[in-house]
Amino acid sequence: MHSSVVELIEQRFSASLFDASHSLSDLAITELTRLATRAPTAYNLQNWRFIAVRSPEAKARLRNFAFGQVKVSDAAVTFIVCGVLPDHAALAERLSPSVEAGYMPAALATGWQESVRVKYAHPQTARDEAVRSATLGAATLMFAAEASGLVSGPMIGFDAEAVAREFGLAPDEIPVMLVAIGRAAPGNWPQKPRRPLTEVLQIS
Amino acid sequence: MHSSVVELIEQRFSASLFDASHSLSDLAITELTRLATRAPTAYNLQNWRFIAVRSPEAKARLRNFAFGQVKVSDAAVTFIVCGVLPDHAALAERLSPSVEAGYMPAALATGWQESVRVKYAHPQTARDEAVRSATLGAATLMFAAEASGLVSGPMIGFDAEAVAREFGLAPDEIPVMLVAIGRAAPGNWPQKPRRPLTEVLQIS
Repeated sequence: MHSSVVELIEQRFSASLFDASHSLSDLAITELTRLATRAPTAYNLQNWRFIAVRSPEAKARLRNFAFGQVKVSDAAVTFIVCGVLPDHAALAERLSPSVEAGYMPAALATGWQESVRVKYAHPQTARDEAVRSATLGAATLMFAAEASGLVSGPMIGFDAEAVAREFGLAPDEIPVMLVAIGRAAPGNWPQKPRRPLTEVLQIS
Repeated sequence: MHSSVVELIEQRFSASLFDASHSLSDLAITELTRLATRAPTAYNLQNWRFIAVRSPEAKARLRNFAFGQVKVSDAAVTFIVCGVLPDHAALAERLSPSVEAGYMPAALATGWQESVRVKYAHPQTARDEAVRSATLGAATLMFAAEASGLVSGPMIGFDAEAVAREFGLAPDEIPVMLVAIGRAAPGNWPQKPRRPLTEVLQIS
């Protein structure tokens, strides 16, 4: 086991209290996002978008749609992590670097495009994939933040329709999670106790 | 930046080729799952279940419902990561250790129970949360595997209804992702190139 990664998993907690005097540069925000996008996605769709809400004005607007949660504005940045409904037409461009790099046969990339077209024809399947991809990105974003000595506070308590409208999301974009990132203020709760493994693990 | 975590994020790839001679003990599988369940969930719902498919017979059955993907049986273990539709009645038990530990007021735990009841009354919202929680668990499971020097192969290509039926999932359980974990065989593709950040990041 790589002990530092294990420690990070064990010590992470969902932060509510952030140091409001701390800010992050564009460069730091870009680096966190670069790492977040290293998460896997089905077919390498990369069907996500990250809106880093950092200005006091944008934070105040977002906070209004997030039941007034203080961490939205106290954190250095609060990301709106969006999933995008899969679009088979966009896949060719997403895969072309893999084809050009020589390890993915062009015919396979074409086959994946057809698979995506068929698989996500059902709206529920498409939405599931948007939620899944955005969540994989958000999880990796949180790990990247922890690796930088920062803390993260994921949130699902927000008005998704209002956020989509006010932050200009496209019709195929779903705001899946908010993730506040910054420097911890004193007084956060530790990671909450977990259920016994016997309740959640079955070995077959 | 904690360089080892960053390296792990950058070097992870979605494995297709596994060393079929490699196996994992119950203890190792339990430890991976213990770490996976350290992922955050909304309201600390922990609305997930992990089925670790390890026996040759169970792997063969699962592989049949996963379009014959060889990694399902070649990997030491393939997890069926299930999300569970949130149940407000179950939350009291999930939060009681936090209340007993003294940092969560009992009234807050009761309030969260009511919030969960209201929030997930809509079936789409409930399904979204099941997909989100299971994906957060799956992402952490993959990090735990990488931290152990193993590789992981997430899969969404499987017949969810057949898997639910054949592996005895409850009506409120959704198989969200399969995650094959084991030792890499030679010949895997590296992590695929990612989209330019300008396409996916907006700083507001």
